[in-house]
Amino acid sequence: MKRAIAIPLFLVIPVLFFSSIRAQQKSDLSGAIKPASGIGDYNTPFNIIASESIKIVLDRIKDYFCMETPFRVIDVKTKVTITDFTKPVQDADFDNGDHNLFNLWTYEMGVTYSGMLKAAQITGDRTYSEYPEKCFRFYLENLAYFKKVDSSFGGRSNSYRPLLHTKTLDDCGSIGAALIKIYKSDREKRYLGIIDHIADHISNKQFRLHDGLLARESPFKRSIWLDDAYMSVPFLAQMGSLTGNKKYFDDAVKQVLLFSKYLLKHDKRLYDHGRNMDNPNDPEIFWARANGWMVLAVCELLDQLPQNYRGRDEIVENFRIHIQGLTEYQGGSGLWHNILNRFDSFEETSSSAMFVYGIAHGINMGWLDQSFASVAYSGWNGVSKKINQKGQVEGTCIGTSLEGSEVYYYQRPTSIYAAHGYGPVLLAGSEMLDFIRNQKHMPNK
Amino acid sequence: MKRAIAIPLFLVIPVLFFSSIRAQQKSDLSGAIKPASGIGDYNTPFNIIASESIKIVLDRIKDYFCMETPFRVIDVKTKVTITDFTKPVQDADFDNGDHNLFNLWTYEMGVTYSGMLKAAQITGDRTYSEYPEKCFRFYLENLAYFKKVDSSFGGRSNSYRPLLHTKTLDDCGSIGAALIKIYKSDREKRYLGIIDHIADHISNKQFRLHDGLLARESPFKRSIWLDDAYMSVPFLAQMGSLTGNKKYFDDAVKQVLLFSKYLLKHDKRLYDHGRNMDNPNDPEIFWARANGWMVLAVCELLDQLPQNYRGRDEIVENFRIHIQGLTEYQGGSGLWHNILNRFDSFEETSSSAMFVYGIAHGINMGWLDQSFASVAYSGWNGVSKKINQKGQVEGTCIGTSLEGSEVYYYQRPTSIYAAHGYGPVLLAGSEMLDFIRNQKHMPNK
Amino acid sequence: MKRAIAIPLFLVIPVLFFSSIRAQQKSDLSGAIKPASGIGDYNTPFNIIASESIKIVLDRIKDYFCMETPFRVIDVKTKVTITDFTKPVQDADFDNGDHNLFNLWTYEMGVTYSGMLKAAQITGDRTYSEYPEKCFRFYLENLAYFKKVDSSFGGRSNSYRPLLHTKTLDDCGSIGAALIKIYKSDREKRYLGIIDHIADHISNKQFRLHDGLLARESPFKRSIWLDDAYMSVPFLAQMGSLTGNKKYFDDAVKQVLLFSKYLLKHDKRLYDHGRNMDNPNDPEIFWARANGWMVLAVCELLDQLPQNYRGRDEIVENFRIHIQGLTEYQGGSGLWHNILNRFDSFEETSSSAMFVYGIAHGINMGWLDQSFASVAYSGWNGVSKKINQKGQVEGTCIGTSLEGSEVYYYQRPTSIYAAHGYGPVLLAGSEMLDFIRNQKHMPNK
Repeated sequence: MKRAIAIPLFLVIPVLFFSSIRAQQKSDLSGAIKPASGIGDYNTPFNIIASESIKIVLDRIKDYFCMETPFRVIDVKTKVTITDFTKPVQDADFDNGDHNLFNLWTYEMGVTYSGMLKAAQITGDRTYSEYPEKCFRFYLENLAYFKKVDSSFGGRSNSYRPLLHTKTLDDCGSIGAALIKIYKSDREKRYLGIIDHIADHISNKQFRLHDGLLARESPFKRSIWLDDAYMSVPFLAQMGSLTGNKKYFDDAVKQVLLFSKYLLKHDKRLYDHGRNMDNPNDPEIFWARANGWMVLAVCELLDQLPQNYRGRDEIVENFRIHIQGLTEYQGGSGLWHNILNRFDSFEETSSSAMFVYGIAHGINMGWLDQSFASVAYSGWNGVSKKINQKGQVEGTCIGTSLEGSEVYYYQRPTSIYAAHGYGPVLLAGSEMLDFIRNQKHMPNK
Repeated sequence: MKRAIAIPLFLVIPVLFFSSIRAQQKSDLSGAIKPASGIGDYNTPFNIIASESIKIVLDRIKDYFCMETPFRVIDVKTKVTITDFTKPVQDADFDNGDHNLFNLWTYEMGVTYSGMLKAAQITGDRTYSEYPEKCFRFYLENLAYFKKVDSSFGGRSNSYRPLLHTKTLDDCGSIGAALIKIYKSDREKRYLGIIDHIADHISNKQFRLHDGLLARESPFKRSIWLDDAYMSVPFLAQMGSLTGNKKYFDDAVKQVLLFSKYLLKHDKRLYDHGRNMDNPNDPEIFWARANGWMVLAVCELLDQLPQNYRGRDEIVENFRIHIQGLTEYQGGSGLWHNILNRFDSFEETSSSAMFVYGIAHGINMGWLDQSFASVAYSGWNGVSKKINQKGQVEGTCIGTSLEGSEVYYYQRPTSIYAAHGYGPVLLAGSEMLDFIRNQKHMPNK
Repeated sequence: MKRAIAIPLFLVIPVLFFSSIRAQQKSDLSGAIKPASGIGDYNTPFNIIASESIKIVLDRIKDYFCMETPFRVIDVKTKVTITDFTKPVQDADFDNGDHNLFNLWTYEMGVTYSGMLKAAQITGDRTYSEYPEKCFRFYLENLAYFKKVDSSFGGRSNSYRPLLHTKTLDDCGSIGAALIKIYKSDREKRYLGIIDHIADHISNKQFRLHDGLLARESPFKRSIWLDDAYMSVPFLAQMGSLTGNKKYFDDAVKQVLLFSKYLLKHDKRLYDHGRNMDNPNDPEIFWARANGWMVLAVCELLDQLPQNYRGRDEIVENFRIHIQGLTEYQGGSGLWHNILNRFDSFEETSSSAMFVYGIAHGINMGWLDQSFASVAYSGWNGVSKKINQKGQVEGTCIGTSLEGSEVYYYQRPTSIYAAHGYGPVLLAGSEMLDFIRNQKHMPNK
C-alpha cells in the first residue's frame, strides 16, 4: 500500500526520463533508501521511457548492419573477392562478415529483415527498409552464378544451399515471410518463384506428425520444436493474405493450436521447448527463446488472419494465457532468464525483446488488457541496456538444439554474433514507439 | 537421516543461546564442516532463542519511538513550533520527525500501536501501552485546532485530513482497530465519536464489489487489494466485540472468505497481492507484505470471533493452508523474500515479522499444529537480526502500490523510515515470548 | 535452434574429453562468446566423458577407504589398542578413524559396501569387493568379544549396539542388504543368523502405520520418512531373491507404493521428505538425499523383482515420473541442490550421485528412455568434480532429521566425513562405466 502517491506510476505520461523521477525520490528520503538488500541489481528504471531514447537504439543497430554488411562475393578459402562471374569457383560464397553475422539467407536474418521493415513502417524512416531490399536484390543478382557453382561442384554448403537444396524449415520459413512482406510493397516479380518454392516445401515436403503438426526427425525420430512455429506460421500467414487461399491460413491456425495442445503447460502458463514424442516422460524445459518464437508467430498470424476466422478466438485466448505466464516469470531487471523459470540462469536478450514486442503489440492491437503496460515498459528498459555503443546486441543465447537436460540450457554461451538478437530488438523498439504514442492518448481508466 | 541425535532439535528446551550449541558442533567435527557451499549466508541460528534476547529487541524499538516522537505542532513550511492555538496556521501539522516516521495517524502507526499494546500485555511492562495512549491523547487535544485550520483554509493534507475527510480504508481501519483496543481499557468517551465515524466509512461509504468485498477504484476501475484485509477486518472484529452487533462480525467473516476466494492460490498456498477484476489474465504476484496483512487480519478476527461462529472453521482451514504455504516458501536465512516465490528478490522484514507472529500466535491458540514451531523460531532469528542498535528496523519495503509487473516488486527500495516494519516486529517478538513460555511446558509428543 | 551442427551432441561417441570440443568451439567464435552473464559457474562439461577418467575417481575412493580404515579395536577413552580379548573393556569399540568415517556397521557404510561390490562387478577389479568382505570378516571375528562387553557392562553404544540391540531401520536395513549380496557370492554360513535377525526386525518388530508402511515415532508420534525406503526395501528385495519367499517381495512392493502414495507430489514429480501424519498441513520439503534414497530403493527392488510381479508396472511408472521431475530440477552445474526446488540452497553431492546412478541404471536396464542420457552425463560431470585428490567426497550434507522448516535444510553443513557420499559416488561411477559402454553400441535413433 502506498500513502503519498494517488495516481499509479504507469499512468504518468511517459515523456520524462526515469532517472529524474528516481533522483527526486532519493531526495525525499535522502540517504534512507537502501537498494534492495544484497541480491541482484534492480536499478532498471520501471515505467518511464522517452521515445527519443528508443529511436537512438534502433538507429544504432541499423547503422551497424548497413555499414558492416560486406555485399561481396569471395572465395572463402582465400578470402579473395570474386569479380569474374563467368567461371564458377568451388568455395565461392558471400563474405558474411565478422563471425558470419551478416549471412543474408538465414532464419535469423529473416527476423532482422522483418524488424527493419517494421521500423520503417512505424518511424517512416525509409533507410530501414532499404537494408532488406538491398540484401534480397544482392542475393538475387548472384543467384544464377551460384546455381552454376552448385551444379559444377555438387551441393556446396554456402549461402545458396538453403534455397537450392531446401531441407528444413530453418532454411526457408523465416526468410520467406520477410520476402513476401517486401514483395507486397515492391511487387518484384522475380521473388514469386522463390516464394512458391518455399510454400511447396512447407506445405508438401516438410516432415509432419500424423495430425499435421510440422516436426523434425532430429534429435529424436519424432521431435517437435516450438521454434518451428516461427519457422512456418509467419510465412503461411503471409501466403494466406498474399494469395487469398484459405489453405495457408488453415494450416497456420492448425500449427498454432497443435503447438499449444502439446507444449502449453497450464500450471506455468509457459510453453515447453519441445518434445521427444516417443518419451511420455519427456522433461518440460521452458527455454526463453522458443517462447519468444511462439509469441512472434502468433502476432504474425493474428495480424493477417481475418476477424472471426475459425480458431482465432482460441489463439487469442492462449496468447493471453501465455502473456500472463511470461509476466509472472519476468526477471528482476526487466529481462527474462534463459530458462524462464530458473532465476539463476542468465538473462537473455533475444527472448526478452520478443516478449516486449508481443506485449506492446498485443496492447496496441487490443488483444491484451492495458494492465500489462508496465511489463512492456520494464522489459524494454532491460533490453535497451543490452545494445552497446556499436549497435551490437549483447546477451543473446547462441543457436541451441532441443535437449533433454536443463544443464545444456544453463550452459549455453551468449554472443554478440548470435544474430537472433537483432531482429527482435528492432521489432520491440519499433512497437514500443507506437505503444508510447498510443499510451499518451489513453483515457485515464 | 541422523544417527547421533535421538530427540529432535526443536524439543530441546529453548533456554540456551544457539551459539553455544553451534560451537559444540564445530568442535565435534573440528574443521571438517564447511559452511553450505558458496551460495547464501545461512548462519541464522535454527531453533534456540533466549527470552531475554527478545525483550532487549522490543525495548530498543520502544525506546526509539518514545524518545524520537516529537509531540509538537509546527508550521511545516518554517519548521517553527506553534504555541498559539487561537490563530489557525495554514501549514500547521504535527512534527512527524525524521522522514515522517512518527506521523501519529497512519495505518502503519496503527500497527505500531497494536504492537505496543500486545507487548504491554505479554510482558506486563506498562511503558509499552503508555506510548499509544500518549499519542491518541495528543492527537485529540489538538483536534479542535486542526478543525479550525481545515475550515479556514479548506481540506489541508495534514495529519488530520484522514480523520476529517476520510476517503480510504488506509485512512481509518488500522488506526481505528488500535483505538478500540485502547478504548476497551481506558473507556475514554471522546474516542467513541471517532470510532463511530470510522465504522460508518467502512460499513457504508467505502467502494465495494457487487458481492460486498471492499475494493478500490485505483489503479484499475475495479481493483481488489489483499492489503485491505488488514485495513478493515481488525476494526470490524473489534467493533463486533465492542458493540455485540453481529453485523460487524458477519462483514469481517465475509471479507476474509472473499479475499480467500479471489486471491488464495491453492497450487502455491499463497495469496496473490490483488487483482484488476476486469482482466481475467491478471498476473499472480505473491507480494510478501500483503500476505502478512492477511495473516494479521485473520488472527485479529479469530481472536474476537466467538467459537462456532458461521465461517470460522473455513477461516481456520484457510489459515492453516496459508501457513503451510508460507512455511514452504521461507527463505534460507529464516526471512521471507519480498516476492515470496522469487528467491532472488530481497529479504523483507515487515512481512517476515508478521508471519512469525501468525505462526507463534496460531500455535499458542491451538489453531496450528505444534510442528510449525521451528518455522517460528528460525523466522524470529532472521527478523531479530534486522533491528539495529538504535532500535530501527532495517530491510522493510517502502509503501507499495498494486502493480502488474514483477519488476516493480523486485525493485522496491527498503528503508528504516518505512514505518510498516515496527508494529510487526513488536507483535512478533511479544508473541514469541509467550510462545517460548508455552513451549517450555509442552509435553513431549 | 542450431544452424551449424546437424547431429545432436549427445550422439557423439563419448570417447573424447569435452575440453577439446570446448576449445574448438572457442576458436570458432574467438573472443565473441561470453560465459553466461554473471550468475553461476556453468563450466561443467556437458556430454562427453572418458571411461578412464571415471575409473580414476573410483580408484581414488577405494584406495582412501582401504588405506584409512583402521581395522583395530581400541579403548575409545584411552585410544589404546586392545589386544587381550579375554577381558571385556567397558569402552571398547572399533577405531572408526578420522571423525568416525569408517564405522563398519552403519547404514552409510552399507551403501559404501554396495558401491564397492557394484564397482567390482562392472570393472572386474576384485580389489573393490575385497574391502566389504574384509570389513564383515573383521566385524564377525570380534562379535563374541563385544557380546561379552555388552553383557558385562549393559547396552554400550558402540559399533555392535545396532546389531545386539536393534532398534531402528537405520540399525540394520542398509547394512543387511549389503551382507546378503556378499553372502550370495561367498556363502559364508555365519552371516545367515545375522540376516535372519535383521529380517525379523524389519518384518515383525519395526513400528508401522495401520496400512503396513514402515514408520517412526520420532520426531512426531506418527512420522514417515522417505529415507526408510532405502533402509528397508533393498534388504527385503534381497531376502526375496535369497529365500524365494514371496512375502518379502510383497512387503517391498507395498513399501514403495505406499511411499509414492503419501509422498510423491505429482505437480513437481518429486518426493516430499516425509510427513507428520497427524498434521494435514505438513509442509512439503523436497530434500535431495531422501529423493536419492528412493531412487536407489526402487532400482534395488526392480533388479530383484521378477518380471510381471504384481505392482512392478506401477513402480516403473512412478520411477519414470520421478526421473522426469529430477531432470526438470537439475541445477546449472549438473549437480542437484540440497532442497531440490530451491536453487539458492547448496549443491549436494550424495543425492546427485544417487540420481546419476538411477538414470544411468534405468537406461541400462531399459526402464528409461534413452533421451535422459544427457542428464546422466552432465550429472556425473558435476559429481566427479567433488572428489578431491585424496579420494574424499566433498559437498555431502551431514546426517539430517525430518524437520518442518526449510531453513533447517538450507543450513545443514556439508562435510567430507559425512559417509553418505561415498557409496553413491561408487555406484554412480560404476554404472556410468557400463552406461558409456552401452551408449557406444547404441544405434543412431
